[in-house]
Amino acid sequence: MDQPQQDGRRRVVIESVSPEIDGGRFPAKRTVGDRVRVEADIFTDGHDLIAAVLLSWTEDSQSWTEQPMRSLVNDRWMGEFEVTELGRYRYTIEAWVDHWETWCHDLEKRIGANTDTDIDYLIGANLIDEAADRSKEPHRQHLRDQAEFLRTETDSETRRAHATGAALNELMLRYPDRRFATRLDRELALVVDPVRARFSSWYELFPRSTSPEAARAGTLADCEARLPYIAQMGFNVVYLPPIHPVGLAFRKGKNNSVTAQPGDVGSPWAIGSAEGGHKAVHPDLGTIEDFRRLVRRAADLGLQTALDIAFQVAPDHPYVEEHDEWFRKRPDGTIQYAENPPKKYQDIYPFDFETPKWFELWKELKSVFTFWIDEGVRIFRVDNPHTKAFSFWEWCITEIKREWPETLFLSEAFTRPKIMYRLAKLGFSQSYTYFPWRNTKHELTSYLTELTQTPVREFFRANQWPNTPDILTEFLQIGSRAAFMIRFLLAATLGANYGIYGPPFELLEGRPVRPGSEEYLDSEKYQIRHWDLERPDSLHEFIALVNRTRNENAALQSDWSLEFHPVDNDQLICYSKRSEDPANLIVVVINLDPHHTQSGFVELPLDRWGVEEDRPYQANDLLTGSHYVWNGRRNWVQLNPDSVPGHIFRIRRRLRVETDFEYFL
Amino acid sequence: MDQPQQDGRRRVVIESVSPEIDGGRFPAKRTVGDRVRVEADIFTDGHDLIAAVLLSWTEDSQSWTEQPMRSLVNDRWMGEFEVTELGRYRYTIEAWVDHWETWCHDLEKRIGANTDTDIDYLIGANLIDEAADRSKEPHRQHLRDQAEFLRTETDSETRRAHATGAALNELMLRYPDRRFATRLDRELALVVDPVRARFSSWYELFPRSTSPEAARAGTLADCEARLPYIAQMGFNVVYLPPIHPVGLAFRKGKNNSVTAQPGDVGSPWAIGSAEGGHKAVHPDLGTIEDFRRLVRRAADLGLQTALDIAFQVAPDHPYVEEHDEWFRKRPDGTIQYAENPPKKYQDIYPFDFETPKWFELWKELKSVFTFWIDEGVRIFRVDNPHTKAFSFWEWCITEIKREWPETLFLSEAFTRPKIMYRLAKLGFSQSYTYFPWRNTKHELTSYLTELTQTPVREFFRANQWPNTPDILTEFLQIGSRAAFMIRFLLAATLGANYGIYGPPFELLEGRPVRPGSEEYLDSEKYQIRHWDLERPDSLHEFIALVNRTRNENAALQSDWSLEFHPVDNDQLICYSKRSEDPANLIVVVINLDPHHTQSGFVELPLDRWGVEEDRPYQANDLLTGSHYVWNGRRNWVQLNPDSVPGHIFRIRRRLRVETDFEYFL
Repeated sequence: MDQPQQDGRRRVVIESVSPEIDGGRFPAKRTVGDRVRVEADIFTDGHDLIAAVLLSWTEDSQSWTEQPMRSLVNDRWMGEFEVTELGRYRYTIEAWVDHWETWCHDLEKRIGANTDTDIDYLIGANLIDEAADRSKEPHRQHLRDQAEFLRTETDSETRRAHATGAALNELMLRYPDRRFATRLDRELALVVDPVRARFSSWYELFPRSTSPEAARAGTLADCEARLPYIAQMGFNVVYLPPIHPVGLAFRKGKNNSVTAQPGDVGSPWAIGSAEGGHKAVHPDLGTIEDFRRLVRRAADLGLQTALDIAFQVAPDHPYVEEHDEWFRKRPDGTIQYAENPPKKYQDIYPFDFETPKWFELWKELKSVFTFWIDEGVRIFRVDNPHTKAFSFWEWCITEIKREWPETLFLSEAFTRPKIMYRLAKLGFSQSYTYFPWRNTKHELTSYLTELTQTPVREFFRANQWPNTPDILTEFLQIGSRAAFMIRFLLAATLGANYGIYGPPFELLEGRPVRPGSEEYLDSEKYQIRHWDLERPDSLHEFIALVNRTRNENAALQSDWSLEFHPVDNDQLICYSKRSEDPANLIVVVINLDPHHTQSGFVELPLDRWGVEEDRPYQANDLLTGSHYVWNGRRNWVQLNPDSVPGHIFRIRRRLRVETDFEYFL
Repeated sequence: MDQPQQDGRRRVVIESVSPEIDGGRFPAKRTVGDRVRVEADIFTDGHDLIAAVLLSWTEDSQSWTEQPMRSLVNDRWMGEFEVTELGRYRYTIEAWVDHWETWCHDLEKRIGANTDTDIDYLIGANLIDEAADRSKEPHRQHLRDQAEFLRTETDSETRRAHATGAALNELMLRYPDRRFATRLDRELALVVDPVRARFSSWYELFPRSTSPEAARAGTLADCEARLPYIAQMGFNVVYLPPIHPVGLAFRKGKNNSVTAQPGDVGSPWAIGSAEGGHKAVHPDLGTIEDFRRLVRRAADLGLQTALDIAFQVAPDHPYVEEHDEWFRKRPDGTIQYAENPPKKYQDIYPFDFETPKWFELWKELKSVFTFWIDEGVRIFRVDNPHTKAFSFWEWCITEIKREWPETLFLSEAFTRPKIMYRLAKLGFSQSYTYFPWRNTKHELTSYLTELTQTPVREFFRANQWPNTPDILTEFLQIGSRAAFMIRFLLAATLGANYGIYGPPFELLEGRPVRPGSEEYLDSEKYQIRHWDLERPDSLHEFIALVNRTRNENAALQSDWSLEFHPVDNDQLICYSKRSEDPANLIVVVINLDPHHTQSGFVELPLDRWGVEEDRPYQANDLLTGSHYVWNGRRNWVQLNPDSVPGHIFRIRRRLRVETDFEYFL
């Protein structure tokens, strides 16, 4: 019968820590400037009081900082620390039985019952002397004096006042007895990303379709010339599909036809040719110098450039010759192309993550990211990460973010839910979601609640896209302006992170390649398009207005406060987002029906918002500029899809005179 | 940039294992004969198929046993193993990419599209040859032959039939390629207890109140003579409050008065005097020989004897003199008595779990259990475990159960929920609950659902008591027979484990010491009582009937199948329990109102039970013997509290002729 390894006098228990992902296996995610709220169940046996501290640690300081935790209810404790730097933090919890606080607490009850005795004060004096032993001058002598006072003072009221005084207590709290403190048996990690991880507005476009002349293909220089148009719409990330040389072998033709015709440009995701691979720029687009200039120009316009990284190769990619050990061989010696039997994708070779040379492969793939990081890119949209080994992503992203913690990775994994979540846990900063296919109020409410109001939000940051080059939803195939506006409003207000694929989006492109398909007709994936950006029905002004609203309202820059509110009409959805600092309250109402005017009563939780039920307040529609004076919880809303199918209200309370409002606090 | 420690080719992920308590920190609990169902999310990148096995390990066999897992839905996998022995099991999961199954799956799709080629069969042949390398004779040669056949057979249909045949597949599944298998990074533990941990009927009584003569106190011999009465009522655990010498110093008088009168017997929980401590029998009760005889006689009657272990001492307990280092000292050299300021309990000294001699204290306390284990006791009711160090309990229970895995510990911690759950995690086999104070349908439904239908049930086994010597609830203070029957029926059917404190319970004792108190008037805790067991209003026949019903119906011997059903009357509660083997379905309906007849429609989930909506089925009331023929989901129930306030229906389906039923399956 061996003595336990732990000192049996550690009496405090710490459990059910939040945030904690899979028992601490993965880091939680935050952005710079966040206050991190950590909670845990903390308790001890018996009736003794306890104290707890939250410890946080940064790579930079290489030391632990302590914050006191406070008791909430039902043995739940809470502490906070602010994350001011990019990179990894660690945090843990320590708690102990606090004999001093227990003594104080008991003494107050004794005094209340008038049963305090000399011995009670002697016990207190001994506790003070023990603290003195732990303390430093000048506190040490001061504590000794206090102890002596409690031992010798004969006037009962003087002694009581002294023992329960704030000065003594404050000093004692500086020197707690932590000999038998319990430390959480693990350190939890936190990845702190730039704010862009939480709040981003993406615009995707194909550079080769940016030529102002119908006679020739677009270049990076043309794309650069397009940047002001994108910046004027209020986006802050411009995302380019792969810009590398496109394979010639088995090149796909227009509309994904199996054989290309002369002049067909192929898919940018069939990467690599004799002209180079993942670290090269397609000669038709320009040079690496052109790319650098584009990135700089974008930055000048407030746009970060995001690159698409697709880890697969065309048969003529240089890797195939140089590193055939990275690919699976067929018995005839050829390399195994991509397949989803009976479908064959002979223009694409996947990497073999079971190759004996797996670590050489990993290092090379990582070097693709670092190559473009060296060229100024800090945001990567990763194509189909779920078809590459999970452990590769954890290693690769962790390694890269160690050196460049400002780097962001968007996971393009439209696959099963647990796989999407796992990729986020492994390190992806943002993730595409099922949003494109969530149309009804019930679908949107339950899905967005899962994403933003459960522990999922600790690791999975949604990025909501109404369309992508692969996804022209049935809803958008309606083709009406209202349908596009509805999906745009939903994406841009439900998602602090969202994106669109343009110009097809703002130009209301809704024609599928065939009925029942989500592929675009004449998709830019396989051919060059020329777009008339000046079309009068373009949504670009509307998009600019919504993005301006997002940029000016902190509430729309995070998803954590999202809350849905009842409307007595299933075609109307209502939700709110709030921010504390700066104080900002936004209520969104959207008509989900692109065909008919819909109306109903929305019901708002005024009590929780601190808005008086019986005083009018103002709902300012930031889309139309209309001001509504509302009263009470229930208010009437009517939305005609042929004008604007949604409201974005900023709520202001305390109506004084017509021109004088106080913002919601 | 170091190479990762794990081989990067381990592509399968295993997460969200169930059961798993606090990330594997604590064992789950089962009883002998259970089939343990283990689930996990298991998946890999890409489109490859995977295979998974559940591994289980016993101390006895010292080896791992494998069971295949199967895929459920949404990447959830399930496996099972049976626990046939008492003690600790371990389990874990291993999973891998199964290239053979992937090949088979793809081949079937190719064959379906008529696109299978020679190369596809060559790939399969290579996989078979690799399996041959891993196999033993005679399989090795057989596999080589199979591979050769696929390489050389020219008849397409013959080759297809061969490749997709069950014989080859079965052989291949015996030799999977597990080189890159992922093993869950931890082993999870399971404590297997005797069935009594899951199904027990407790009867508590004070031996000193069992004298048949009013003139003298009861003894262990009298208590032994009471055993047949208890056994006839159908109980299987007889639980005795502490039987040790009672302290004289600061002894409490009748009704907990601060000063005892001559002849007052004191509280059995004020343990220890010059006559001995926790390992002694009170001389007034008899000798250790008397105790042994009682335990044997109980066993002959099918009763296990449970002892109360209360780790606290009276001031005259021998420990105080022999081990004053186990107690906290006051500055005046006296020992700190128990306090909850301003209340003082000077008849009780708590142990100081922060003593430097903590491990000597732990060992002595453990020896109290083993002393009584040596005397034949295997069930302990532990008094106030939440006022002793948590780490002590984990160590003590684990140590004892290692040697005597049949031992059970009931935690008497009426305290905050997280503390009660923690004690259960640490090793207590059963726990008292808040049941005494859950009276309404909503309260009972939500609490019992939490206990039985959430992961709580993996570690916390409820033991439901309508009363204890400390708890005479307001509901029972009504004093009516109906009130006692209602609470009894609830306890005995909601709780596969339950107990009563008798004879006060069966004799409808409902008088509190004063209004608003839950203490009994003239409580047996402080004085000897004499009870008239023959009173005509005694519930003992009713109790015997309910216990017989419990003993004869497997459904009532576990809580895991508990399910509540709607009734359109808030005073009626309806729930069911089921067992599979033997097949048994019990539906309970109870009138929660002790004053009025209540009626309503109960609604049963016939579809899930496999009972046809349009065929009559039988509900046999096991309390009254009445047979009801029911039809459809909704059926009428009426209960008069003045007769029997509840039904315990056994449901039988397939009505053929009146006397011929088939039990529910």
